[in-house]
Amino acid sequence: MEEFKLSLTDRSGNLTEAEIAAEMAVHAGLLERVKKGETEYRESLGWLDVSVWGGEPWISRYESLAREVQAQADVLVVIGIGGSNQAARAVAEAIGEKSGVRLVWAGNSISAYEIGEVIRQIRGKRVYIDVIAKNFETLEPGIGFRALRAFLKEQYGEDYRRHVICTGTEGASLHALCEKHGYTFLPFPQEIGGRFTALSPVGLFPLAAAGMDIRALVQGAQAMRDRLMREEGKENTALRYAAVRNLLYRKGYRMEMLSFFEPRFFRFAKWWMQLFGESEGKDNLGLYPLFGNFSEDLHSIGQFLQEGTPVIFETFLEARRSGASLMLRDDDVEDGFEYLNGKDFDEVNRVACAATMQAHAERFPCLQISVDAMDETAFGQLFYFFFFSCYLSARMLGVNPFNQPGVEAYKVNMFRFLGKTK
Amino acid sequence: MEEFKLSLTDRSGNLTEAEIAAEMAVHAGLLERVKKGETEYRESLGWLDVSVWGGEPWISRYESLAREVQAQADVLVVIGIGGSNQAARAVAEAIGEKSGVRLVWAGNSISAYEIGEVIRQIRGKRVYIDVIAKNFETLEPGIGFRALRAFLKEQYGEDYRRHVICTGTEGASLHALCEKHGYTFLPFPQEIGGRFTALSPVGLFPLAAAGMDIRALVQGAQAMRDRLMREEGKENTALRYAAVRNLLYRKGYRMEMLSFFEPRFFRFAKWWMQLFGESEGKDNLGLYPLFGNFSEDLHSIGQFLQEGTPVIFETFLEARRSGASLMLRDDDVEDGFEYLNGKDFDEVNRVACAATMQAHAERFPCLQISVDAMDETAFGQLFYFFFFSCYLSARMLGVNPFNQPGVEAYKVNMFRFLGKTK
Repeated sequence: MEEFKLSLTDRSGNLTEAEIAAEMAVHAGLLERVKKGETEYRESLGWLDVSVWGGEPWISRYESLAREVQAQADVLVVIGIGGSNQAARAVAEAIGEKSGVRLVWAGNSISAYEIGEVIRQIRGKRVYIDVIAKNFETLEPGIGFRALRAFLKEQYGEDYRRHVICTGTEGASLHALCEKHGYTFLPFPQEIGGRFTALSPVGLFPLAAAGMDIRALVQGAQAMRDRLMREEGKENTALRYAAVRNLLYRKGYRMEMLSFFEPRFFRFAKWWMQLFGESEGKDNLGLYPLFGNFSEDLHSIGQFLQEGTPVIFETFLEARRSGASLMLRDDDVEDGFEYLNGKDFDEVNRVACAATMQAHAERFPCLQISVDAMDETAFGQLFYFFFFSCYLSARMLGVNPFNQPGVEAYKVNMFRFLGKTK
Repeated sequence: MEEFKLSLTDRSGNLTEAEIAAEMAVHAGLLERVKKGETEYRESLGWLDVSVWGGEPWISRYESLAREVQAQADVLVVIGIGGSNQAARAVAEAIGEKSGVRLVWAGNSISAYEIGEVIRQIRGKRVYIDVIAKNFETLEPGIGFRALRAFLKEQYGEDYRRHVICTGTEGASLHALCEKHGYTFLPFPQEIGGRFTALSPVGLFPLAAAGMDIRALVQGAQAMRDRLMREEGKENTALRYAAVRNLLYRKGYRMEMLSFFEPRFFRFAKWWMQLFGESEGKDNLGLYPLFGNFSEDLHSIGQFLQEGTPVIFETFLEARRSGASLMLRDDDVEDGFEYLNGKDFDEVNRVACAATMQAHAERFPCLQISVDAMDETAFGQLFYFFFFSCYLSARMLGVNPFNQPGVEAYKVNMFRFLGKTK
């Protein structure tokens, strides 16, 4: 797998290769333990082996259910929030529409306006829904399911139940609803936390319904796993990424910005934010994960990056082939942009990226992660790479990568205010 | 103007009212100087007096041009980036579609895929464009104009020129193009920097074309101006906001998160980020401006806010009436959400906001800015409030609020890589 690259550009003098090598050496033992079969956190390491939820017969199951949905529906409404929808949405919005059903996202807010917009979008269409929730006490998918259930009942009467798929924990409340009402059930992996579920029914089934090549996605992840298991401590790509971010944190950086020049990476960046923010943001520690949607955001926060409080470093994310092309044609209007004649937008965008990284690297270290194309294989690589490196990074920071005790505080208040008694 | 409120909730003990009062007292003189007619930065203070670009006859001019566009077109493509499109986009995306033309946004990226999407969206529609650029050397609007010009020429032949409006600096290159090719020209105010132009042709004309009530918007801004000019130093709302942020910066906070439970505030938050990021992010200083699109983002970065590195405080933004309503109906499915029966989504969303602020205020100070409704009047108030308080805040920090020297670095590289010679 030559196409996935991690590189470092730094002219700031704030980070040396010797420091990185030393940091990697300190944690080489952790990497070895993970390779040999870590015992700590074993109950949350289900994502380590891609072949469990991403192998046959599961893939066949997702694909056959996807074919059923494609035959019966125009739209699949995915009802989920956080780890339950971000991975699928990241891939779907980056790759764009394919031959399958259109995916619509709901259950990720409590806004009456937003849910109204979803209903407006799907009216008159043939609709299936996939309700995804590890713990079906979460408010947003709960009320999203209610709103969409009412819509389906209006359209299909009691037959509505054939249009409902639920992805939940086996034996828990959502599973019980499926049994009772005859909805289709897919299991939410118990040994994988929400933000690590991209390569399970949570991420793979909606993508299959949209017509994505989920076999390529899983193969990309598997190839990344093979590579990371093969690479020795001092050359391991994930360990290097984790080492750099921990070093920079200790040097006083407080934010890592995932920057990209292809706006279609926006939802992937949101996925990445959750992964790192929830895994590391605890015990008063952690780099805050940000994103830079360039070039647009250069015109708002570029100034701060270049001259503001020096607490941000960047990781640029690039797909070397965007799959889009548009020539800059000349015409009779002398608009001052003649130097662009005959150039492709895509080439110009690539130049803007290189120019930005060079400018920013004068001030702080810039990492770059580069994949071959904006396709399923690349997203498989990216998911697995970030899972693995996030796990290493959180361990190096000294925190539990898999819990999120801090998200309960507002929920306790909310349930109390809303009069929930149990 | 009772409806605009700024309040502070803090149970963290990290900020006292006595400290705020002292900070405000230190800078009361600055406020007085601004009220009396500041002389420093005079060349960039054109936004202080709303009546210049937001009074008659300008409003009539924007409205009559808007009527022309509405009569001839279905869509107005706004070609601009950063300060040239964020304010209009903030209002348009928050309020939603009105009776005017649909606004489509272009010239804010270099992505070939994005510009292709714009062309795909407008094909078959009757189209006008508004090219907005203070300095028409900026790459994104330059190539956006080229792409849309080619589209218009295909549709209308040489008559295409009647579909082009340009908003640029008088006497500069975009103005010259208008004269030569017969495009309609609107002036970009010379005495207002890009990020302060919401209440000028830059922000107001596209909104008028979309059918927004720009008179209400300007009146909201004027009412805020009147209030801020009236309020004495120790009770001045803008001075209080500026004082709190500067105090918290000195106490070690490095990020201010603008948080909201109405996803439609997303583009307003982007506008706010540019305003504060570019105005304060210099001389190695400044709070980094972030946003929290809740409740969705609570499921990704809520953990970090509650337990991560303690460098973030929040300002909640709320519209007390969202204008949307949707009752949570009960049905025969016992889904565990019976405690919501008979409640309105909108009420639940408000409870979620209060619960979150209460939980977060245990850890860090939380400000709240509350407006009456998601309407033009409120956005007028918000624009002026943030202009004024950002100006005060940057002055208190000791930086020039109006320049952005740091954004040049990547442009120099880019122009060199692209072979631009002058």
